[in-house]
Amino acid sequence: MATVKLLSDDELSPEARAVFDDIRATRKSDFVNNFWRALAHDPKTLRRTWESIKEVMAPGALDPKVKEMLYVAVSVAHGCSYCIHSHTASARAKGMTEAEYLEMLAIVGMAAETNRLVTALGVPVDEAFLVDAPAGRHQEL
Amino acid sequence: MATVKLLSDDELSPEARAVFDDIRATRKSDFVNNFWRALAHDPKTLRRTWESIKEVMAPGALDPKVKEMLYVAVSVAHGCSYCIHSHTASARAKGMTEAEYLEMLAIVGMAAETNRLVTALGVPVDEAFLVDAPAGRHQEL
Amino acid sequence: MATVKLLSDDELSPEARAVFDDIRATRKSDFVNNFWRALAHDPKTLRRTWESIKEVMAPGALDPKVKEMLYVAVSVAHGCSYCIHSHTASARAKGMTEAEYLEMLAIVGMAAETNRLVTALGVPVDEAFLVDAPAGRHQEL
Amino acid sequence: MATVKLLSDDELSPEARAVFDDIRATRKSDFVNNFWRALAHDPKTLRRTWESIKEVMAPGALDPKVKEMLYVAVSVAHGCSYCIHSHTASARAKGMTEAEYLEMLAIVGMAAETNRLVTALGVPVDEAFLVDAPAGRHQEL
Amino acid sequence: MATVKLLSDDELSPEARAVFDDIRATRKSDFVNNFWRALAHDPKTLRRTWESIKEVMAPGALDPKVKEMLYVAVSVAHGCSYCIHSHTASARAKGMTEAEYLEMLAIVGMAAETNRLVTALGVPVDEAFLVDAPAGRHQEL
Amino acid sequence: MATVKLLSDDELSPEARAVFDDIRATRKSDFVNNFWRALAHDPKTLRRTWESIKEVMAPGALDPKVKEMLYVAVSVAHGCSYCIHSHTASARAKGMTEAEYLEMLAIVGMAAETNRLVTALGVPVDEAFLVDAPAGRHQEL
Repeated sequence: MATVKLLSDDELSPEARAVFDDIRATRKSDFVNNFWRALAHDPKTLRRTWESIKEVMAPGALDPKVKEMLYVAVSVAHGCSYCIHSHTASARAKGMTEAEYLEMLAIVGMAAETNRLVTALGVPVDEAFLVDAPAGRHQEL
Repeated sequence: MATVKLLSDDELSPEARAVFDDIRATRKSDFVNNFWRALAHDPKTLRRTWESIKEVMAPGALDPKVKEMLYVAVSVAHGCSYCIHSHTASARAKGMTEAEYLEMLAIVGMAAETNRLVTALGVPVDEAFLVDAPAGRHQEL
Repeated sequence: MATVKLLSDDELSPEARAVFDDIRATRKSDFVNNFWRALAHDPKTLRRTWESIKEVMAPGALDPKVKEMLYVAVSVAHGCSYCIHSHTASARAKGMTEAEYLEMLAIVGMAAETNRLVTALGVPVDEAFLVDAPAGRHQEL
Repeated sequence: MATVKLLSDDELSPEARAVFDDIRATRKSDFVNNFWRALAHDPKTLRRTWESIKEVMAPGALDPKVKEMLYVAVSVAHGCSYCIHSHTASARAKGMTEAEYLEMLAIVGMAAETNRLVTALGVPVDEAFLVDAPAGRHQEL
Repeated sequence: MATVKLLSDDELSPEARAVFDDIRATRKSDFVNNFWRALAHDPKTLRRTWESIKEVMAPGALDPKVKEMLYVAVSVAHGCSYCIHSHTASARAKGMTEAEYLEMLAIVGMAAETNRLVTALGVPVDEAFLVDAPAGRHQEL
Repeated sequence: MATVKLLSDDELSPEARAVFDDIRATRKSDFVNNFWRALAHDPKTLRRTWESIKEVMAPGALDPKVKEMLYVAVSVAHGCSYCIHSHTASARAKGMTEAEYLEMLAIVGMAAETNRLVTALGVPVDEAFLVDAPAGRHQEL
């Protein structure tokens, strides 16, 4: 139940079409998923979002599949079902094994639990965790 | 501003002390951070939480530093400042480089943005993302 | 999939019916949406919620369509699909243009991104932002 | 308690300095707030975020103060204290009156309440709210 | 770091003072906590919020301490430190034992964990949980 | 739309089957709901989660139906529709009356509203709410 009509290829403005072309060229696939078809109503946001994602998810310091897994973890915490599905699929496509997937799930659940326990208890941050803690402190963690 | 007093070592019940001993032995460090000192009021939850974290964060399919980074990502989305500080410190202690840290931050921010755009637009999940999508579909992502 | 049965007009208690009558009179429309039909199981909460919404959303300092857009923005951040749909429809009915809608979406996404970056980095509040900052400071923002 | 050191002007890389120069020129103020000083560790994300904010918050279809108020509303729902302070200050600097501020607060609170009631009850979206509802339906809202 | 000045008793408008008088009379205490001193800038929202809380938290079907515990649980999930502190204090004042408090914490943490696991996995609701499930189904849960 | 296939009884690993056996024996019912059928892909997390829930939800200081209601309250704030349905059904099965249910809903909504108002206003915690406040202070709340 989208709040806007999903645009098919022949309903795109020239600006939106140019972004779709780049999505297809970058991903080497004709498939353009619904997120972009909804965002296509606003070519400016479509372009900015696509360019940003391309920059952020480009090969870098982290393994591409780890980047997708971080994306999934955040999407779970924000309760975005669409994003969970799309990035879980992407992580799998980039080599995430089932063991890695299940381990990630366990971490997401565990973090949620301790996040809420800490918040409920109002635990103050240990000095050792501060960025300017005396050298050597972090080594013990 | 904790809602309970943080317990010092000599205020621990025998059951809580046993868990602290295991924390110290497992981490090979005398340092026990405030989270456990708050949780020590409830030895049963202290034990269960520690045993669960030990199981979940044990060496497995994923790199230990990646596991900490997933923990940080979820903690950010849940707004748990303590958890962000403690697991960012742990990730660094386990070898996360500054480049990896900054790349993770960019992904967390980007995911938050697209999570909310998708939710606002009510984008329906593409068939290609379903777990039982025809073989070959995922390869294109 | 509601956790309670949605009540039709002829299943209402007299107290609930009185609230429905006021909803219809206030909105000058026979249509009563599902939220009120679920809430009608509890006439007291039905009345309090309706009276509160009527007060909060009444003509005031802000443009009615802006008020609906603020409602949508919060609903997106809370992940309430129903509320997003109902208040996006209301904002459109009150004159929100497509350009305004898309600009709002871009802000919601952008805010989500910087909210999480700030939280991850633990950025301390600048003195200039405090309510009792020296006069003249805010002018620079 | 930041997880990174806030960078002073003389600790900036040339790339970060260039962004700071643009922030100062755009805002016609020498003041650069802490968010950018934390983000300056990653010149790429600093630039992308600043360029994105500049685009999104530029004069457009919506009143600049309304745009800041939408930013505040989202920041409240995400619990980002820094963002609440900075964008409340910006909204005031752009002309938000106290009456408008208090009206916005009331809407944010009200939306939070009905968001959670709707979620708890699992209320299904009314057909009238769908984007392809028969013409005339929206007029009644 | 409030975004408004907290109002002292002699800074109240007559409308706000009347609400403070009722808070004091209802609670049989001279103490008026900071929440109301911030909200006092908007006498209308101050009155509506106080009247609503009075109605919702009045003696009813649930034990007063249980009502405060539900308030704490929600406040934890929303990450509102002030609310956690005030309602944990209220729950204790209304007789919540330490054992009850710790049991509540454990439930909040556990719920957070399974909430996120369920969301990550996209688990579909069982028919047996639907409100119109065949009689007898719920008995088995 | 699950991200994994829900496992039927004859697709379970021996480790998962053992947990299912215990679920059935503990609940004295043959019914095993979808959450466990999704989690069964990871027998270790299945076992840990089940053992944890069994410990946390076991008879203790709080009434079993109150424990389920706390679970529902947290699940609402986290927006987990599945969890809301399953624990609302459980609470009803354990004796929650309709009056108790509706009172809980009202509290969840009210807490959400004041949580966000407090966060927006940045209200500082009153000294009286601190765990080490002078004796007698809490009595006044």
